[in-house]
Amino acid sequence: MAPFLSRRDLQFQLYEVLDTAALPGRPRFAEHSREVYDDVLNLAYNVADKYFANHTREADLNEPHVVDGKVRLVPAVTEAMKAFRDAGFFSAHHDEELGGLQLPWVVMQAVQAHFQAANIGSSGYPFLTIGNANLQREFASPEQQEKYMLPLLEGRWFGTMALSEPHAGSGLADITTSATPRDDGTYSISGTKMWISGGEHELSENIVHLVLARIKGAPAGVKGISLFIVPRYRVNADGSVGEPNNVVLAGLNHKMGYRGTTNTLLNFGEGGETVGELVGEAGRGLAYMFRMMNEARIGVGMGAVMLGYAGYLASLEYARDRLQGRAASAKDPASPMIPIIRHADVRRLLLRQKSIVEGGLALGLYASALVDDQQTGPQESREDTGLLLDLLTPIVKSWPSKYSQEALSDAIQVMGGAGYTRDYPVELYYRDNRLNPIHEGTEGIQGNDLLGRKVTQSGGRGLQVLVEKIQADLAAAEGLEGLDEIRAALQKAVAQSGAALQSVLGKAPELGPDLFLANANSALEMLGHTVIGWMWLRQAAVAARKLPEARGDDADFYRGKLHAARFFAVYELPKVKAHADLLASADRTTYEMAEAWF
Amino acid sequence: MAPFLSRRDLQFQLYEVLDTAALPGRPRFAEHSREVYDDVLNLAYNVADKYFANHTREADLNEPHVVDGKVRLVPAVTEAMKAFRDAGFFSAHHDEELGGLQLPWVVMQAVQAHFQAANIGSSGYPFLTIGNANLQREFASPEQQEKYMLPLLEGRWFGTMALSEPHAGSGLADITTSATPRDDGTYSISGTKMWISGGEHELSENIVHLVLARIKGAPAGVKGISLFIVPRYRVNADGSVGEPNNVVLAGLNHKMGYRGTTNTLLNFGEGGETVGELVGEAGRGLAYMFRMMNEARIGVGMGAVMLGYAGYLASLEYARDRLQGRAASAKDPASPMIPIIRHADVRRLLLRQKSIVEGGLALGLYASALVDDQQTGPQESREDTGLLLDLLTPIVKSWPSKYSQEALSDAIQVMGGAGYTRDYPVELYYRDNRLNPIHEGTEGIQGNDLLGRKVTQSGGRGLQVLVEKIQADLAAAEGLEGLDEIRAALQKAVAQSGAALQSVLGKAPELGPDLFLANANSALEMLGHTVIGWMWLRQAAVAARKLPEARGDDADFYRGKLHAARFFAVYELPKVKAHADLLASADRTTYEMAEAWF
Repeated sequence: MAPFLSRRDLQFQLYEVLDTAALPGRPRFAEHSREVYDDVLNLAYNVADKYFANHTREADLNEPHVVDGKVRLVPAVTEAMKAFRDAGFFSAHHDEELGGLQLPWVVMQAVQAHFQAANIGSSGYPFLTIGNANLQREFASPEQQEKYMLPLLEGRWFGTMALSEPHAGSGLADITTSATPRDDGTYSISGTKMWISGGEHELSENIVHLVLARIKGAPAGVKGISLFIVPRYRVNADGSVGEPNNVVLAGLNHKMGYRGTTNTLLNFGEGGETVGELVGEAGRGLAYMFRMMNEARIGVGMGAVMLGYAGYLASLEYARDRLQGRAASAKDPASPMIPIIRHADVRRLLLRQKSIVEGGLALGLYASALVDDQQTGPQESREDTGLLLDLLTPIVKSWPSKYSQEALSDAIQVMGGAGYTRDYPVELYYRDNRLNPIHEGTEGIQGNDLLGRKVTQSGGRGLQVLVEKIQADLAAAEGLEGLDEIRAALQKAVAQSGAALQSVLGKAPELGPDLFLANANSALEMLGHTVIGWMWLRQAAVAARKLPEARGDDADFYRGKLHAARFFAVYELPKVKAHADLLASADRTTYEMAEAWF
Repeated sequence: MAPFLSRRDLQFQLYEVLDTAALPGRPRFAEHSREVYDDVLNLAYNVADKYFANHTREADLNEPHVVDGKVRLVPAVTEAMKAFRDAGFFSAHHDEELGGLQLPWVVMQAVQAHFQAANIGSSGYPFLTIGNANLQREFASPEQQEKYMLPLLEGRWFGTMALSEPHAGSGLADITTSATPRDDGTYSISGTKMWISGGEHELSENIVHLVLARIKGAPAGVKGISLFIVPRYRVNADGSVGEPNNVVLAGLNHKMGYRGTTNTLLNFGEGGETVGELVGEAGRGLAYMFRMMNEARIGVGMGAVMLGYAGYLASLEYARDRLQGRAASAKDPASPMIPIIRHADVRRLLLRQKSIVEGGLALGLYASALVDDQQTGPQESREDTGLLLDLLTPIVKSWPSKYSQEALSDAIQVMGGAGYTRDYPVELYYRDNRLNPIHEGTEGIQGNDLLGRKVTQSGGRGLQVLVEKIQADLAAAEGLEGLDEIRAALQKAVAQSGAALQSVLGKAPELGPDLFLANANSALEMLGHTVIGWMWLRQAAVAARKLPEARGDDADFYRGKLHAARFFAVYELPKVKAHADLLASADRTTYEMAEAWF
């Protein structure tokens, strides 16, 4: 069985491309060292390998179902949660006074990557719980944190995000779940929430739902939305779990993949009162949610990367082992068959996967490091860092979601019929990952966010920072051996993207908002490929610098990086132009299509 | 529930783009008329709707499994087979003296398209049976046809193609199943066959396997491969079914999709002798198989088209009904939500699907019409027609297989979370269609076939015919309103493709076969998009001619065709250049990648 993740590449990304080993130089991380990080990562690997990878297929074949009114999961999930809890990962990035290790977010993300790669379904529960706690940490009152957050950090209770409703998924402005003030300052919550991952299960003593709802009389639209803490079981004054809070499971969604994470339809206030507590100020619910979105979306992108990466490793192992056919130049039919990795088209499929998943990993970790820089980096650059992170987030979320799916299709293709069966994991990863372009904001929403908001935010400063950083890396890489193709291709992509943005932004006033955004997807594609090209330049530059001294496996590793960068330059970056042309022309084709013509 | 196919578009393709109504002018079809064809298509629609579409999901949820040594399918499949048989479709294209209607292949393909759209899994059994009978009709002896083919035409027995073995899938040259001559002129067959669709079931009185095997002492490679008829049950002298022939089910493959078609591992000669009859001459087995490949590959391509089409229609219906959000220009949050079809990015996803599936349908039927032209068309052009068909076949097989998958991904994306659940059919189509780029020759094999064989076959005559036909259609479309974009884009794509082929063919001697074929996939992509662009020009030209007189739904239909052609011109055809550049440069990236660098 192929490994679920490349520990060598993770080390490369963290310590050779990024400067994670320097983080202990910052006050918050002063107790750390590279050894601390490596110990944490080793622990993550061992727990993921032993307690998560062991039931990936089992959880897929036995999706969550209701027995006697309770959601039943395969028993191994309970063991996995215990192991994750025992390892201390629920609180690892939190303050020491809260029982945490104050791990940098980039290391925390690398930790989580192990679980996503080993078993994306089971990783969903801690993923949601950690996100929930992060939001409480930032916006909930000290009393609320004491009551509802600390049990999450201990892994005793789990969390969810309850945003969507049956009639309001992408369009959260239209949610109707209501919150009616009660005499004691709490609220009575009533309504139905849809697509709630981890919404009901028996894995934890309690479940803390973070619920978007409207306080009676609130204005229409996003300004009327508030955020509430709504526990599955009410919490007694001593913090113990009390009576049920009338959050009723109305149904489970049956998904194509990602089956290990149970996904629910929940009724609030059915058969009795559901009590919730307001978080922060009324009317700021969506703003709070979106403040946490950068991290959540990086998490989704990383999940996509890791699924694609696991598929790449599985198909690579298969391609090395499977004998089939001969080179086109081999004339003797009695000559031995060759491993399929020697066929050029199989190498193309493998190189494409490599260029996608290693490019995606570089980006996911780069963005995670920006989260750290924004919080603990040099004070004078934090604002720029935040703007760059804002700009990159829609790409970090959507590029790997889309392209890991293509990589996983390539993995299946390498393996042929075998890849299409349940005897191998790639068909499962393919089904799992197809969710990623949908949840936490669809690809369409990411495109609108990028072109409609992030590109122009703060006078376009985020985009300016991005271009400056790319140009600096291009300049620094000048003269390095083996980088000509990636440098030239990236320069071209940057120029094409810049010109296209300038063109469409210049026309924006005359186009109006609808037509301006009509080709937002092209902006996402164009900048996505360009940014991944930049990630490849960064990796290739490191490889080129280290290759002269490297020997053995290390030398092969760096040659592989250089070659994958070349592949991305030659096979992928030329695709930028078509998107840039479309965007620059403010093409009206989709805008002008009438409904009756379909 | 959305319809599984657009009958209006099928009529358009058959009678407005193609000249199917003129086929009765040929002697073989003299008894026919458009009314006859329409009656047949109506019958196909009704049978598909009532007996195939009714158990698509049921068959997916209850995949074939073994009970008491027998393969159990859902009972509705048996009913479906009876209905297909009662409608006479097993023999409809065969001679009247064999009980057929002498239907043209293009009409037969349109008939089959209904069943593929309604239920690809159940359509597999007749699809394989018809292919098997076609091969027998061409190469088996009259006695063999009497004994083994006639029961297939009656739909009493079913057929398979047994080519692959566990160690030999794409590389058929390495099969080892053996055939030992027996005293009575028959052969004793021994070996294991893998991936045999329809290999074992209780749907028919007997199963006729067409088996590739080596006669003892035959040379290595393809020249040592012969073709055998191997029935599940031996056949008595009076044609009745006799004792078992020792073809033993060794296992079922568990697939991600396409589950309705049972897929088997079969042992021949286990527990007793398996007797087979040689078809035609020894050593010509693979040649016989490949003579039937054009039709089989068109069939796979059409299956992909129909799955994509069904997904498009499902997502279109959803997009018209589902309310969500507002236009970017709408400022009032209390204004009503709009159907998502009004969002430009949803229209993009729908237009992309439309351009893929209607382009694919046009190509599949065009190629089917070429099959007819090759057999019954004007004598003087039959050779050219055959060469054009040979050239197009790898594209007809692989382009829809790949791009319907992208279209189905777009269908899921339109529907968001709903599309990812089993409440709607698109996730199923997505799983089903992922097989199509694999079976009947993987995409890699199609690329090699196209660039390594078809492009240069007969001095490149096939390519020349293609270019002439495209140029003729371009010239004929000059001056038609609304065609500027598709004409210009197609002209560019033809020029780019032609130049790229000229470049790489010119370098072929110095490149050698391995490097020459290293970017065969780019040739497939480049010519695939160009050919689909041509199919859109043909459709758009018809629409432009008819639009001035058209009213109501017809006018909308033609405007939709013109707009989808424009979409393909603006969004898809510009992608040709990157592939053409890669091919022209004879890029060495995949070729030079060392195994150790992965």
